[in-house]
Amino acid sequence: MFTCDKERMKNKIEMFSNFGDAGHGGITRYSLSPEAHQARDEFVNRMKEIGASIETDDMANIYATITGSEPGLKRIVMASHADSVKNGGNYDGILGVIGAMEVLETITAENIPHRHPITAMIWTNEEGSLYPPAMMSSGVICNDYLPADIGKNFKKEKMLASKSILDKTSTFGEALDKSPYKGDGKNRLNPNDYMAMFEFHIEQGPILEDAGNEVGVVTAVLGMFNYRIRFFGQADHAGTTPMHKRQDALYAAAQGLCYLHEEIDKLKTPGLLYTTGEIMCHPNIHTVIPDLVDFSIDVRHEDPGLRAKVLDIVKSLEKKEWARCKCEVELAWQRDTVYFDKELAGYVKEAADELGTKNQVINSGAGHDAQFVSYMIPTTMIFAPSKDGHSHCEPEFTTVEQCTKGASVMLNAVLKTDRK
Amino acid sequence: MFTCDKERMKNKIEMFSNFGDAGHGGITRYSLSPEAHQARDEFVNRMKEIGASIETDDMANIYATITGSEPGLKRIVMASHADSVKNGGNYDGILGVIGAMEVLETITAENIPHRHPITAMIWTNEEGSLYPPAMMSSGVICNDYLPADIGKNFKKEKMLASKSILDKTSTFGEALDKSPYKGDGKNRLNPNDYMAMFEFHIEQGPILEDAGNEVGVVTAVLGMFNYRIRFFGQADHAGTTPMHKRQDALYAAAQGLCYLHEEIDKLKTPGLLYTTGEIMCHPNIHTVIPDLVDFSIDVRHEDPGLRAKVLDIVKSLEKKEWARCKCEVELAWQRDTVYFDKELAGYVKEAADELGTKNQVINSGAGHDAQFVSYMIPTTMIFAPSKDGHSHCEPEFTTVEQCTKGASVMLNAVLKTDRK
Repeated sequence: MFTCDKERMKNKIEMFSNFGDAGHGGITRYSLSPEAHQARDEFVNRMKEIGASIETDDMANIYATITGSEPGLKRIVMASHADSVKNGGNYDGILGVIGAMEVLETITAENIPHRHPITAMIWTNEEGSLYPPAMMSSGVICNDYLPADIGKNFKKEKMLASKSILDKTSTFGEALDKSPYKGDGKNRLNPNDYMAMFEFHIEQGPILEDAGNEVGVVTAVLGMFNYRIRFFGQADHAGTTPMHKRQDALYAAAQGLCYLHEEIDKLKTPGLLYTTGEIMCHPNIHTVIPDLVDFSIDVRHEDPGLRAKVLDIVKSLEKKEWARCKCEVELAWQRDTVYFDKELAGYVKEAADELGTKNQVINSGAGHDAQFVSYMIPTTMIFAPSKDGHSHCEPEFTTVEQCTKGASVMLNAVLKTDRK
Repeated sequence: MFTCDKERMKNKIEMFSNFGDAGHGGITRYSLSPEAHQARDEFVNRMKEIGASIETDDMANIYATITGSEPGLKRIVMASHADSVKNGGNYDGILGVIGAMEVLETITAENIPHRHPITAMIWTNEEGSLYPPAMMSSGVICNDYLPADIGKNFKKEKMLASKSILDKTSTFGEALDKSPYKGDGKNRLNPNDYMAMFEFHIEQGPILEDAGNEVGVVTAVLGMFNYRIRFFGQADHAGTTPMHKRQDALYAAAQGLCYLHEEIDKLKTPGLLYTTGEIMCHPNIHTVIPDLVDFSIDVRHEDPGLRAKVLDIVKSLEKKEWARCKCEVELAWQRDTVYFDKELAGYVKEAADELGTKNQVINSGAGHDAQFVSYMIPTTMIFAPSKDGHSHCEPEFTTVEQCTKGASVMLNAVLKTDRK
């Protein structure tokens, strides 16, 4: 068994936390921003130092590859993203990049024999924080392999036209054209040249920490659906409309939201996650009775049968009036549960056990580039714990020990794949 | 008894509906806009035609006055506003201006004897749709007479600095400087020169229509309070945070909102109006558990004791946790019930009865310039019915007959005041 170097990990975590430092312990590092380019430069410089060759593709994804001992074999790639949400932390995404760099650095520093070329990779614009949607580049690169209803939302032309949420006019395509990392489409990740992908990532939840485990062996990304739930009322003056004549869409929506929580909670299903996170109210003036309120529900569970039960509850909202308002529900989007490659996940589990790293099988509730890549080549993920389960915020934290143990598990899992 | 002229009323209603015509049966006529100036020009031209003298004050309020038979007597003024909300109707405000014009036109056309000078007036920026707040000019002109906690929000300097809600930079003061109707502060409505004010207005609610009445004798503007109700949760990832660990501020707020409606409805108080019309949710992203939700409650009733009972219910929200979230409530603003002058309201009632116009006593739930003026000089209001109770929207409608009957009631009430 081989292990990664804690000091080298620490140095990289600290170095990358400078790029986009927002002054409160976290970062804002939108994809293709100057800060993101600093991080990319650092990645490229460090990878060149160990003799890796650098390639970039048409979506500005970067590939740093060290050769293997047997010519003509496919590459094994370790990939994650270097961009962040606004006021995000120092671990989401970048830990997987740092871990991949660390694996290559360990292999070259210790001359660890390996047959296949091994690649560390940065995915462009995983968060979609400045230019939506999230997982943009993996959606483009794996487009031909994705289910049609997902793939249609990630056509390259559409992605290039995605507008900045800040200035509402500049596009992702313009930022890509300006980036020195925009490269050649022939360098894209593809099933002819790559045999497997690993993505090392923080859990972004409290499960590993609560169980006292240091590594998660990720076997699936949970299936989910997202519905919009709308209530239609009548706008009238707050000071002049008698109560019995009102059709108050916000009161209706509050009743509907409480009903959903109560009914779904009655299912008492372990592992079920559902969230009513977004609400829109019209005209949203304190002196006017609302005539249109719309909220979201996001439901995640591995089992499609259980998701169907929850959907029945959601759809039942339409069957009655709420505070004299009609209700309509509409599918926003859904995805099936994506199962990672069992053989690769097995290597991760073996590697963790052999290293004596406390681990458990876990699902990912969040989406990752790995879930799109898994439609194209064998793929799996490795999770490190998140302190207090926090992520997408500045307090995001994972200890250097935990980061290093996760990288060591990835190193040995890659070597097991290499020996296959 | 004298009566106003239906054809002349119809002509004015149709003419004024051109100024700011938004193409769907209603108007957008922000105060001091080109459309509002068209309406002001029409008012001034028609008033000059009947020999009225025109004055304007430092807030661009316009006064058109016909002389009375006895020199040195105070004026009687009839006033409302000519501005509208965005996509408003052809009656809110402007009907009171048209009614005042019609009263002067009837008096001059029929040579009706009167001792006092009588004035038709346009208040500037009652709606506050482009430059908040509402009732801006009456708040400035009556400032010395208003309760301190209200008056402090209507200091002239602050009003001049009010920014356009559209471009967020241009101010009300700049628009005022550009207006040909900005005049001299010495022309302001004041208690030395004016003995009484009448405001004719649409009800903006369904009470008159439901009761089959044609005129409302308005005796009070309801006291009210407005609170903000906030719930504090913890933002976390929708896909990774177990349900039992969540502090979901939107679920908490929905529970709190339903609780408020249920508990307040138990009071079963006739005439009580309360509205939860505005909600803010942070970060309001469908994949994030909300950490801060804030909604408004607007409560209106004549009786301060009853309002206090409702306030107890609002404050009781703070006493427990809602879905593991804390709740805080905060006063946004309040006002006591404003009672109109009993003598003037009595003249309105007498006039309506003598004209055989079906009428009833009614309160105003909405705010009007008259409520601020009533702190300075004897004031009252007259309501015309609103079809289906609609207002602040394009379908706003009152028949020409109803408009004319209301104007006739105002005419005779003014003449009764004149004979006092």
